[in-house]
Amino acid sequence: MRLTKQTNYAFRILMYCAVKDGELSRVAEIAKAYGVSEPFLFKILQPLAEGGVIETVRGRNGGIRLARKASDITLLDVVRLTEDSFSMAECFEREDSDCPLVETCKLSAALREALNAFFGVLASHSIDDLARPNDGIGFLLGLERRKEALAPA
Amino acid sequence: MRLTKQTNYAFRILMYCAVKDGELSRVAEIAKAYGVSEPFLFKILQPLAEGGVIETVRGRNGGIRLARKASDITLLDVVRLTEDSFSMAECFEREDSDCPLVETCKLSAALREALNAFFGVLASHSIDDLARPNDGIGFLLGLERRKEALAPA
Repeated sequence: MRLTKQTNYAFRILMYCAVKDGELSRVAEIAKAYGVSEPFLFKILQPLAEGGVIETVRGRNGGIRLARKASDITLLDVVRLTEDSFSMAECFEREDSDCPLVETCKLSAALREALNAFFGVLASHSIDDLARPNDGIGFLLGLERRKEALAPA
Repeated sequence: MRLTKQTNYAFRILMYCAVKDGELSRVAEIAKAYGVSEPFLFKILQPLAEGGVIETVRGRNGGIRLARKASDITLLDVVRLTEDSFSMAECFEREDSDCPLVETCKLSAALREALNAFFGVLASHSIDDLARPNDGIGFLLGLERRKEALAPA
């Protein structure tokens, strides 16, 4: 049982944008920070934009930023957009199940309960929680110097 | 995020054995009940036997049965034996992570907390919980008639 690579990089993209705090980020710059390709990130951005957590600004000075406050984006919002399926058991989609026990067995209910507990914890953490303290993360992403330059003297 | 097919059939094998209540089951009979191949089931039985939840009796009248009471085998015991990995994020194995945020970010801790909540629910359900009421499951598996035949008059 794993979360996909897409989900993992979705978290990282959103944390990057959270540290930038409303300022636009270019995809090239995020790709460089994490050592991955731009096409890979673009594929992840699509569901995030469609799901209303990322905003895209087109054009020469364009880029991406969070579409709402980092504290209003939970980890559950993210996995819901980036994970294909949460079918813990084949019988989660009852119509497709060929298990002879599908009408009687309590496995599906038990796994659903476990998944809901998992979701509950994800819903209690926001992207803002992850990205703070911004100091460390901004520094590690090479964003610290720029922030200092932008800060009032 | 999914559980593997192996895990799903591990649950079904153990439920089958729970309904048989100590009586040996032949792998051929379980394969037939669930419409899968014997080699597929044998692959799943190996970790279950090594992990001490299934007991194998060799020979002409051999078969398998639960190695301990169905009420003492939790769903967590099963997934621990059958799932390859619970790496929610690449940084779960910190040594292998190339994420620049690995030292600072709280993602790993949040995902661990979520996974522990998932495990907690799995630990609270046993194979016995799933297999009861045995009536329905025994009937669906074609075991009911035999049980009646074995019952004292």
